[in-house]
Amino acid sequence: MAKDLKPRRPRAETPKGFRDYFGAEVTARQTMLDRIAQVYHRHGFDALETSGVETVEALGRFLPDVDRPNAGVFAWQEEAVPGGGSGDWLALRYDLTAPLARVAAQYRNDLPSPYRRYAMGPVWRNEKPGPGRFRQFYQCDADTVGAASVAADAEIIAMLADALEAAGIERGDYLVRVNNRKVLNGVLEAARVAEAQAADVLRQVDKFDKFGEAGVRQLLTTGRTDDSGAVIAGVGLADDQVGPVLAFLTSKGADNAATLANLGAAVGGSSLGAEGIDELSQIAGMLAAMGYGPDRVVVDPSVVRGLGYYTGPVFEAELTFEILDEKGRKRQFGSVAGGGRYDDLVERFTGQKVPATGVSIGVDRLLAALREKGVAGAEAQGPVVVTVMDRDRMADYHAMAAELRAAGIRAEVYLGNPKNFGNQLKYADKRGAPVAIIQGADEAARGVLQVKDLVLGARIATQASVEEWKSQPAQVECPREALVETVTEILSR
Amino acid sequence: MAKDLKPRRPRAETPKGFRDYFGAEVTARQTMLDRIAQVYHRHGFDALETSGVETVEALGRFLPDVDRPNAGVFAWQEEAVPGGGSGDWLALRYDLTAPLARVAAQYRNDLPSPYRRYAMGPVWRNEKPGPGRFRQFYQCDADTVGAASVAADAEIIAMLADALEAAGIERGDYLVRVNNRKVLNGVLEAARVAEAQAADVLRQVDKFDKFGEAGVRQLLTTGRTDDSGAVIAGVGLADDQVGPVLAFLTSKGADNAATLANLGAAVGGSSLGAEGIDELSQIAGMLAAMGYGPDRVVVDPSVVRGLGYYTGPVFEAELTFEILDEKGRKRQFGSVAGGGRYDDLVERFTGQKVPATGVSIGVDRLLAALREKGVAGAEAQGPVVVTVMDRDRMADYHAMAAELRAAGIRAEVYLGNPKNFGNQLKYADKRGAPVAIIQGADEAARGVLQVKDLVLGARIATQASVEEWKSQPAQVECPREALVETVTEILSR
Repeated sequence: MAKDLKPRRPRAETPKGFRDYFGAEVTARQTMLDRIAQVYHRHGFDALETSGVETVEALGRFLPDVDRPNAGVFAWQEEAVPGGGSGDWLALRYDLTAPLARVAAQYRNDLPSPYRRYAMGPVWRNEKPGPGRFRQFYQCDADTVGAASVAADAEIIAMLADALEAAGIERGDYLVRVNNRKVLNGVLEAARVAEAQAADVLRQVDKFDKFGEAGVRQLLTTGRTDDSGAVIAGVGLADDQVGPVLAFLTSKGADNAATLANLGAAVGGSSLGAEGIDELSQIAGMLAAMGYGPDRVVVDPSVVRGLGYYTGPVFEAELTFEILDEKGRKRQFGSVAGGGRYDDLVERFTGQKVPATGVSIGVDRLLAALREKGVAGAEAQGPVVVTVMDRDRMADYHAMAAELRAAGIRAEVYLGNPKNFGNQLKYADKRGAPVAIIQGADEAARGVLQVKDLVLGARIATQASVEEWKSQPAQVECPREALVETVTEILSR
Repeated sequence: MAKDLKPRRPRAETPKGFRDYFGAEVTARQTMLDRIAQVYHRHGFDALETSGVETVEALGRFLPDVDRPNAGVFAWQEEAVPGGGSGDWLALRYDLTAPLARVAAQYRNDLPSPYRRYAMGPVWRNEKPGPGRFRQFYQCDADTVGAASVAADAEIIAMLADALEAAGIERGDYLVRVNNRKVLNGVLEAARVAEAQAADVLRQVDKFDKFGEAGVRQLLTTGRTDDSGAVIAGVGLADDQVGPVLAFLTSKGADNAATLANLGAAVGGSSLGAEGIDELSQIAGMLAAMGYGPDRVVVDPSVVRGLGYYTGPVFEAELTFEILDEKGRKRQFGSVAGGGRYDDLVERFTGQKVPATGVSIGVDRLLAALREKGVAGAEAQGPVVVTVMDRDRMADYHAMAAELRAAGIRAEVYLGNPKNFGNQLKYADKRGAPVAIIQGADEAARGVLQVKDLVLGARIATQASVEEWKSQPAQVECPREALVETVTEILSR
């Protein structure tokens, strides 16, 4: 039975953790993604667009918790099929990799192998929203499925550099740093670190940036007392075990050859480590042959992020220019993309291991960087606003706007109530209009119109001398036929 | 407690009613939407992107059925907030108008008024899927909120014509037909049709295309017996009441002036009808002044679709070229876009009536039309495939692909296992590659490579004479330095 039907006005609110994007926020992102897509396409990658909805079963990651199948995702159950038992659980995708895994398995007999694909679109996370953390956001991925050769990794690294440049990041403002999970595993082998200890060791390795060589040595052995006197327990490695780990952490040399030689010393006799170094050497060689030198890509053992997830080469693109943080301190902009090789993509579905490597660009981070660099404007140019002095002459005003548009100029007629002319100029201001067009009955009779430079006008309003003010340079009269010419001239100022 | 955790392989399947889009299916749509967006932007419309998720409360349409809040939409309930009662019901948006209404109400103090916005993106419907009917599909809308003047309608009609041409529909292949709900209401007034009867009358009016003037006259009065002898009851209007309705249905004249005059006779003394005709006349006048003549826009009283929903001007864009239907019969392609004026957009939220007018382009229909016209290719050009004869020389092959890309040519290196060369050519075929590059050790030593024209090769394989076959015109050897030049020449054939 229907319950309370008393009319109550609904709240006009975005759901918690979701947001709306207006104007240039939308177009700047689309422009960036279009440019990146063009690079991916030129590299032979094909677009793939899966739907936002997947079965929870195919998404997978959440299945172990069968009592709460929607932890982390937005999920719901389909209505039961009559006579067919309970309905499927469906969910919004939480990334673009899980749908790729499903597609690679579902169409494995039809897709070319290797399969190169790129995907761009929103993903959803059912998480507690926070400042700057939303429950819907964009991802932008490219992956090669079914290629075991590190040539596939080299290709994606080169493509990432091209994509950043196409988006508007200049060469010299970014660096792709490459490492290999196998090298670290070789180091652990050389250091005789037991498998049970590996996670603890990796945790301390991650602190190298913070505590330096001496600090990490303490953390790996007997422990460390910090400035406040608090004691942090050590992992308990012997002194001779620490050597390879620290050699790994300090192996960055003056060039790739030096770094690779240092890594060779760090992994000692580990064949897995040697394999990793050989892969890095191959990747560096291929990139150099393609023209991607150390100004764009370097071997850098300090890339450890994501090493747990990946199985071979890993890489990270970082922007090297400085910005001011919220406290006004200079810091590097930092990471905007990362990726690497992983092998378990399709296995869940088919039981077969399929090698894959891919990259994911942080769409919001890269957009923020482009804004920082002034490449993607936060505010786009508003339209030229044709004002309405005489309601009976709407057709004339529309014809003016159409002429401007035919010349490639963004233009619109004021469509509100034209009675109050002040409102029309306020509207033009709110729209960020650079120019307003005015033609009253007297101007129409004389075959002229007024062109108002609103940018100059705003400047004069705050800075002009009395003489400038009187000369009204921000408004010019021109013949009706000279509309496009006059506006073009003002817009080019 | 977790239940059965026995490993079972998940099914790799798209959920029922959803589909995946590959390659050119994605890029052709994106190209079309980008072109349309550019037209909208140039007309002063701003992009708006709301999230896929809204509160069920804000979406609205489904609220009356409080026991089944998810009828027609995909909905789920948020987890309860501790101490805060039950969680909100959220849902995927089912169109782009409901989110616009929410935005127009939520930001009413910040948005310019009138607010012109366009939106493009997926919407979701929880309906029984059928052939060609999916539960996620794209919409592409433009609306002006807060403009009472029919100048806003004229603008959107003109913009629709521009958008169709920008997408690739040639002038002459489309026609925008304009009508006005007020005219029909005026006709009902003139015919003294009681409000309770209006819906019945409208239903018969809709059958004009099928039964013609005589048939509809029967349906409106005493009823009609069809060929099988079945009797369809009539609405019961008197003969003199039918006059205005049939005059309306047959009012299309040789030009807009004639049509408007005929409509004037049909509405008789109804002031509402006269108002509708005046609006149509104004719209036609403005469009003519902007250069949109009867080859692109006409007043046409037969546009009745959606008349129930709209409150003033309505319009429909139809493609006039013929296609063959599934039975091989010729028929017009038909409608690809429609829109009109509606007034209840924001009222649900604020209690205030806000005039609005808008257009929605049927994304899949228009894409199908572009494919029909050969404008949007179903298959895009595959990449040039650089084959791998010698695994140690991957860097050289990558350098070739990079050179081709630098010249703007889509190119990739084969990244599968190179042992079986036949597999590489099969792969190139599957990718739709126009050209394959081959360089073995001997060619490398001589500083040359082989360029294979796969398009010509495929033709020769089926059609060539023995002489042609022997001369192998589909494969040429060229100096390594002439790679780009040679490929460019072949691609331009």
